[in-house]
Amino acid sequence: MSNVTIAIDAMGGDHGPPVVVPAGLQVLARYPLLHLILVGDSELLEKELAKFPNRTERLTIQHASECVEMNESPAHALRTKKNSSMRIAINLVKEGKASACVSAGNTGALMATAHFVLKTLPGIDRAAIISSFPTKKGRDVRILDLGANVDSVPNNLFQFAVMGSVMASAIDTIPTPQVYLLNIGHEDNKGNELVKQTDRLLTHSKAVHYAGYIEADKIYDGDADVVVCDGFVGNVTLKTTEGVAILISQLLKDAFYRNGWTKLAALISLPVLKSLIKRMDPDRYNGAIFIGLKGVVVKSHGGAKTSAFACAIEKAIVQAEKNIPQKISAEVERLLKLSAHDS
Amino acid sequence: MSNVTIAIDAMGGDHGPPVVVPAGLQVLARYPLLHLILVGDSELLEKELAKFPNRTERLTIQHASECVEMNESPAHALRTKKNSSMRIAINLVKEGKASACVSAGNTGALMATAHFVLKTLPGIDRAAIISSFPTKKGRDVRILDLGANVDSVPNNLFQFAVMGSVMASAIDTIPTPQVYLLNIGHEDNKGNELVKQTDRLLTHSKAVHYAGYIEADKIYDGDADVVVCDGFVGNVTLKTTEGVAILISQLLKDAFYRNGWTKLAALISLPVLKSLIKRMDPDRYNGAIFIGLKGVVVKSHGGAKTSAFACAIEKAIVQAEKNIPQKISAEVERLLKLSAHDS
Repeated sequence: MSNVTIAIDAMGGDHGPPVVVPAGLQVLARYPLLHLILVGDSELLEKELAKFPNRTERLTIQHASECVEMNESPAHALRTKKNSSMRIAINLVKEGKASACVSAGNTGALMATAHFVLKTLPGIDRAAIISSFPTKKGRDVRILDLGANVDSVPNNLFQFAVMGSVMASAIDTIPTPQVYLLNIGHEDNKGNELVKQTDRLLTHSKAVHYAGYIEADKIYDGDADVVVCDGFVGNVTLKTTEGVAILISQLLKDAFYRNGWTKLAALISLPVLKSLIKRMDPDRYNGAIFIGLKGVVVKSHGGAKTSAFACAIEKAIVQAEKNIPQKISAEVERLLKLSAHDS
Repeated sequence: MSNVTIAIDAMGGDHGPPVVVPAGLQVLARYPLLHLILVGDSELLEKELAKFPNRTERLTIQHASECVEMNESPAHALRTKKNSSMRIAINLVKEGKASACVSAGNTGALMATAHFVLKTLPGIDRAAIISSFPTKKGRDVRILDLGANVDSVPNNLFQFAVMGSVMASAIDTIPTPQVYLLNIGHEDNKGNELVKQTDRLLTHSKAVHYAGYIEADKIYDGDADVVVCDGFVGNVTLKTTEGVAILISQLLKDAFYRNGWTKLAALISLPVLKSLIKRMDPDRYNGAIFIGLKGVVVKSHGGAKTSAFACAIEKAIVQAEKNIPQKISAEVERLLKLSAHDS
C-alpha cells in the first residue's frame, strides 16, 4: 500500500476508546505505511494506549474537548459541537491532513457534519450510504442508499446508480457492474412514482449497465452488483436483514438447546455453524461508506467490537487508496459532457 | 364452526387445480359444516376431483371460461376477463353466495378486481394487504400494508392502523394490540414526511393503542402486535424476510453438505432443523388478507403447495366466522362518531 493517513473519531460508538484503540493498533500492525490520527479526549486515549505494548509513531493523538452523543439531533451537533471528536476528524479530511475518516458515532450527525464540512462532489446533489452484503453465489452485492435520504427524487437515485457502479468497478474490479433498481415487482406497472421515473432515467442513459427492477427477495441471489433505492427503503431492507438473521439464529439456538440429545447435536454441528457464521461474518461487513462527498467517510456500526471496527478502518484505507471520490467525480464529469453532447 | 361457504379461484397460482382440489378436500374433511365452491374450468376440475375418493356434496364446481394470467396487467384483467375464475369467485362474495374467496392468482389483478367489485368499507379509502409472521417470543406480528398501495398518504396509514388493531383483537383476542409505525429510527426527527405526519395523526387519536416508531430489525422481537407501513416498504420488508431466510438456509445446507463429517453432523441435527422449520413454518403463514373491503379476500402465495393452500383457505374461514369486515366497519363508525363529537 501507499502512505495513507486515516482520522478516527475515537469517542464515537457504544464503546469508544476501549474498542477504537486496540482496533487501530491491529490495523497499524497489518499496514506498515498506515498512519492513524485518533481524535478524542487525549487523557482517556493515553490511558487506553498505555495498556498495549505495541504503540507506534504511526499513531498520533489529536485532542478533542467535546463528543457528539448517540441520541443528539444532527442539527444540534452541527451547531454546537464544533470541537467534537467527530467534527475534528472530518475537518482533518477537509484540510487534507487525512485521506479518510472513520466514526462509530451518531449516523445522522456524522452525515450532517460530513455534508456540511466536505460538501458533495460536483454533479452530485446528495450523498448516500452504501455497504456490501454476502450473497448465495459468494460475490457481494452493494446496496445504496441505506438511510441518508428519506425523500429522494429520481435524480438522486440516478446519481446513486452511477456512484454504486463506479464503486463496484473500482473496488471489486467488476468491468460492467449489473445495476438494479429495487422494486416490488418486475412489470412496468409495478412500483411507486419514484421508482417508475428513475427507471425511465436509467433506461434512457448509458451511464451504467442498468439491468432493470429487482425484488427484495432476490437481492441476495448474487446476480446484482449494485441495488439502488431510496434511503428509507434501503434502511428498512438493511434492518429487516439484521432482524431476520437474529430471529433465525435465536430459533436455531432454542432448537439446539432444548434437551440433552439436541445439545449433543449442537456440539457436533458447532464447526458447521461456525463456518456458516464465518461466511456471513457481520464483522467483515462492518463499515458503511458515505458516498458522493469530497472526501471519504466510513461509518462503523455503533456497537462494533474491535475486529469489526478494524474492518471499518480497512474499508476507509481501500476507499482512500482507490481514490473513490476522484473516480466518481471523473465519471460524473464524463457523463455530464456526454449529455451536453447529446442535447 | 358455523355454516360457511368459501369461493375458490381454482385456476390461480403456479399450480391451479392439482393443488387447489386436494387442498380443498383436506379442509372440507377438517370442517364438517364448510362448503366450498371451486371456480374454474369444470372439465379440468372434474378430472382432478376424479383422482380422489373423498368427494363430498359440500364441494361444488362453478364453471369459468377464462383465467387471469400471472403476468397480466390488473387493468387488462379487470376490463377484459369478466368470466375469469378470479372475477366469478369475487362476484360470489359480492352476491352473498360465499362469505369469502381465496385465490393464488395475480396479486395486482386480484386487488384491482376485489376493489372494483366489492368496494371499500365506509370510512376506508384504500384496502391493504395484511399478514402474520412469527416472532422470537412466539406470538405473531401482523404487518400491513404489504403491497396494495405504493404511494400512501397519512390517512391511509392511519386507517391501516385501525384495521390492523381490529384484526389483532378479533383474531388473536389481544385486548389492546400494540400498534407500531415502521420507521428508520426512534427519534422525532427520523423518517420521511409520510411517517412523521402519520405519527402525529396516531399520537393525537385514541383510535388505537399507538406505541410509536419501530425499526425493521425489531419487527420480529415480539413486542409489536401490529406494524403499519406504506405498501412499497411493507412489500420490501416481506420479500427481504423471505430472501434472508432462503439465503441462510442455503448457506446452512452448503455448510452441512461440505464433507462426510459435516454430513454426519447434518444427520444428527436433522430433528433439530426440522423443529426449527416447523416453528417458522412458511405454509402456516400462507394467506395474506385484503383488509378494508366489503367482503373477505385471501391471497395465497402463487407457488403454494397443497398444505400451504389449505392454510390460506382456513384463514378465509376464520375471517368469515369472525365477521372481520363488519367489525372494522363498526369500529370505523364508532371512531367517526367520536371525532364528530370532539369537533
